[in-house]
Amino acid sequence: MALTKKPVTGMKDILPTEMQLRDYCIGVIKETYGQFGFHSIETPCVEHMENLNSKQGGENEKLIFKILKRGEKLNLEEARQEADLVDGGLRYDLTVPLVRFYANHANELSAPFKALQIGNVWRADRPQKGRYRQFMQCDIDILGEPSNLAEIELILATTTTLGRLGFSGFQIRINDRKILKAMAAYSGFTEESYDTVFIILDKMDKIGLEGVSAELLKNGFDQAAVDKYLELFKGLKDEQDGISWLAQKLEGFLEEEVQAGLKEIIASVKATKASDFEIVFDPTLVRGMSYYTGTIFEIAMPQFGGSCGGGGRYDKMVGKFTGNDVPACGFSIGFERIILIMLENGFRIPGQPKRCAYLIEKGVSGQELCDVIARAQKAREDGTQVLVARMNKNKKFQKEQLAKDGYTEIEEFYKNPLK
Amino acid sequence: MALTKKPVTGMKDILPTEMQLRDYCIGVIKETYGQFGFHSIETPCVEHMENLNSKQGGENEKLIFKILKRGEKLNLEEARQEADLVDGGLRYDLTVPLVRFYANHANELSAPFKALQIGNVWRADRPQKGRYRQFMQCDIDILGEPSNLAEIELILATTTTLGRLGFSGFQIRINDRKILKAMAAYSGFTEESYDTVFIILDKMDKIGLEGVSAELLKNGFDQAAVDKYLELFKGLKDEQDGISWLAQKLEGFLEEEVQAGLKEIIASVKATKASDFEIVFDPTLVRGMSYYTGTIFEIAMPQFGGSCGGGGRYDKMVGKFTGNDVPACGFSIGFERIILIMLENGFRIPGQPKRCAYLIEKGVSGQELCDVIARAQKAREDGTQVLVARMNKNKKFQKEQLAKDGYTEIEEFYKNPLK
Repeated sequence: MALTKKPVTGMKDILPTEMQLRDYCIGVIKETYGQFGFHSIETPCVEHMENLNSKQGGENEKLIFKILKRGEKLNLEEARQEADLVDGGLRYDLTVPLVRFYANHANELSAPFKALQIGNVWRADRPQKGRYRQFMQCDIDILGEPSNLAEIELILATTTTLGRLGFSGFQIRINDRKILKAMAAYSGFTEESYDTVFIILDKMDKIGLEGVSAELLKNGFDQAAVDKYLELFKGLKDEQDGISWLAQKLEGFLEEEVQAGLKEIIASVKATKASDFEIVFDPTLVRGMSYYTGTIFEIAMPQFGGSCGGGGRYDKMVGKFTGNDVPACGFSIGFERIILIMLENGFRIPGQPKRCAYLIEKGVSGQELCDVIARAQKAREDGTQVLVARMNKNKKFQKEQLAKDGYTEIEEFYKNPLK
Repeated sequence: MALTKKPVTGMKDILPTEMQLRDYCIGVIKETYGQFGFHSIETPCVEHMENLNSKQGGENEKLIFKILKRGEKLNLEEARQEADLVDGGLRYDLTVPLVRFYANHANELSAPFKALQIGNVWRADRPQKGRYRQFMQCDIDILGEPSNLAEIELILATTTTLGRLGFSGFQIRINDRKILKAMAAYSGFTEESYDTVFIILDKMDKIGLEGVSAELLKNGFDQAAVDKYLELFKGLKDEQDGISWLAQKLEGFLEEEVQAGLKEIIASVKATKASDFEIVFDPTLVRGMSYYTGTIFEIAMPQFGGSCGGGGRYDKMVGKFTGNDVPACGFSIGFERIILIMLENGFRIPGQPKRCAYLIEKGVSGQELCDVIARAQKAREDGTQVLVARMNKNKKFQKEQLAKDGYTEIEEFYKNPLK
């Protein structure tokens, strides 16, 4: 029976050229984050169904790859519901497993705990171009740090990493869930309607002020509330210091410390950043996940079509596992997006070792073979990559293929006719 | 609702200390294998059920984590068999996915193709100490190389890597499936009984010659065949050049080239090896997987209780996917075993960057905070790992914990009382 050659639907094989870039990026990421005191941890790819379905994952909870129970004989005849068959699933993000990990190991970890996770996650999204059902996420998180030092360090670490990967001229957009809520409250929206309002606000980038206004009205919101809300965004456009202006407008709706906190994050990042980017206050920034409780931020690369990562503060999630809230804040790089951009821009990996190929004629054996291998061993010792292979019948094609794979030197070894 | 803190049954969280060692080892492995011309590839963790169940996985096929179908509404009421619900599973090894990958991409790859894979695999083994249901495998394979240059390069690459990870004094044991078969044929066993005979032979290490003899007889094998078989092993004990002696004995049962091939592998490896180990012919070496067709080998570290990896030639597996056989040979390091040994022996990672912690008193803000962060940024630029964190109430405990985490320098920053 011939077997199936293609990968499973929506997942992909990664070939050497892309893998080399991925390995290089992971190396830079680990080294740079390490310099900021983030240390790697790992959790299993399989997670308890009840944790995945804990309402922390939003829409992702609908996209879980579920795994049949093991260790008991499954009775299909009697199974009436999924829970009779399934008790685990593939993780759809790294945040839920991180929080479980922290709940399980807090006593063994430093406080605050700074974690780096690079790992695959799975989502059964409808397959489409450039979007896969298995993809890598790259998250840093700080647990146990209530002050905005967490946000400052997360933003500096992430932007330094992006800089070292060759990115520049991008934007970090920052907002606070509390500002979003205060603006909605000030305008007269009811608390139950916030989620709907924010989903519409999130489209500002695409449909503009007029579009947001029209869609809010279409959703049946009060004209006065919509007008008051939109006035805030119009007013902000002309302000140099939008945060101060807004804080004054929202007096009575917004805690004083939110303004001071955001300003300090922006000022500190500007003063100490190690790469070329802007950090800007963006009151239209929403971020989808409902678990965020405070600051939210996003990497914007308009030249590459949008967001390349984001994060924020989620102070209530650990409490879901332990009963005791722990302040938490994280930043995730859109790893697959970054790789795609670098590939499309023909990024050249710096400092790669030289690649040599030694092609040996068929029939070269014994001492002659040993001599060639010994020479390769010496070059390897010195850091050169040496491929030792038999010469193919079609030597020309073989050499072309090797050149394509980055082998800049090719030597040929023939059987000694005198022996 | 409190969520579940423990990882799923049989899988484990990996804490920073172990992750640091794993990352270090992966770095050494990738660099060393790279110098031998092995380049990384990756396949999805999820594989087609029909590929996993293709009889290439032996006993592992009973241990598959199966994944519910996606993209169609599952009807539990009507499902009568597992295939109605399941179409994919988590891979139990990296060889089946590699062969599928090669079948799918052969036109885009160099010939011969040298692949490095480091990735997780899953087996629903009965949970037991030191054995996990998710674990990392680390395989190199050469596809398209019929000559024993493949074996030589695989053994050199693997042993060089082990040497760079600090291992020495180990053994590479080597045998050939064709010798195993010739010895059984010469003794008079029928071809159908080979598998049973080899399973018993595989216990030689533990039960000795007498034990193997007794168990063969207990299984109903002919006394004369058992005696003749055991005479071969007894005879080998006193031979300096076991391969030649055996080849002579097995004349008519063993192709001449097997002897020459094995001898050339052993001689070439001895002449060009870059680390401290022995390579020895071991006619009792069996290796479990039935897909092996020629040479088989194993890393023996008796001081650490046995095998730390192995491999061999499997020239018939690609043909299962494509209809055309392609010579193939691979070597797998027992990654988890290696990590366990290194942890138990207190391995110290060389060349680690210095770790400093800057502890900042609560209330330090504005320009003072920026000054501390700017100093950290400068040190990071120079390669130091700098953790910037708020001072905890229990500063003494915090500093102890940091020291445990490898922070050798701790500086404290207080609010300037003069301001």
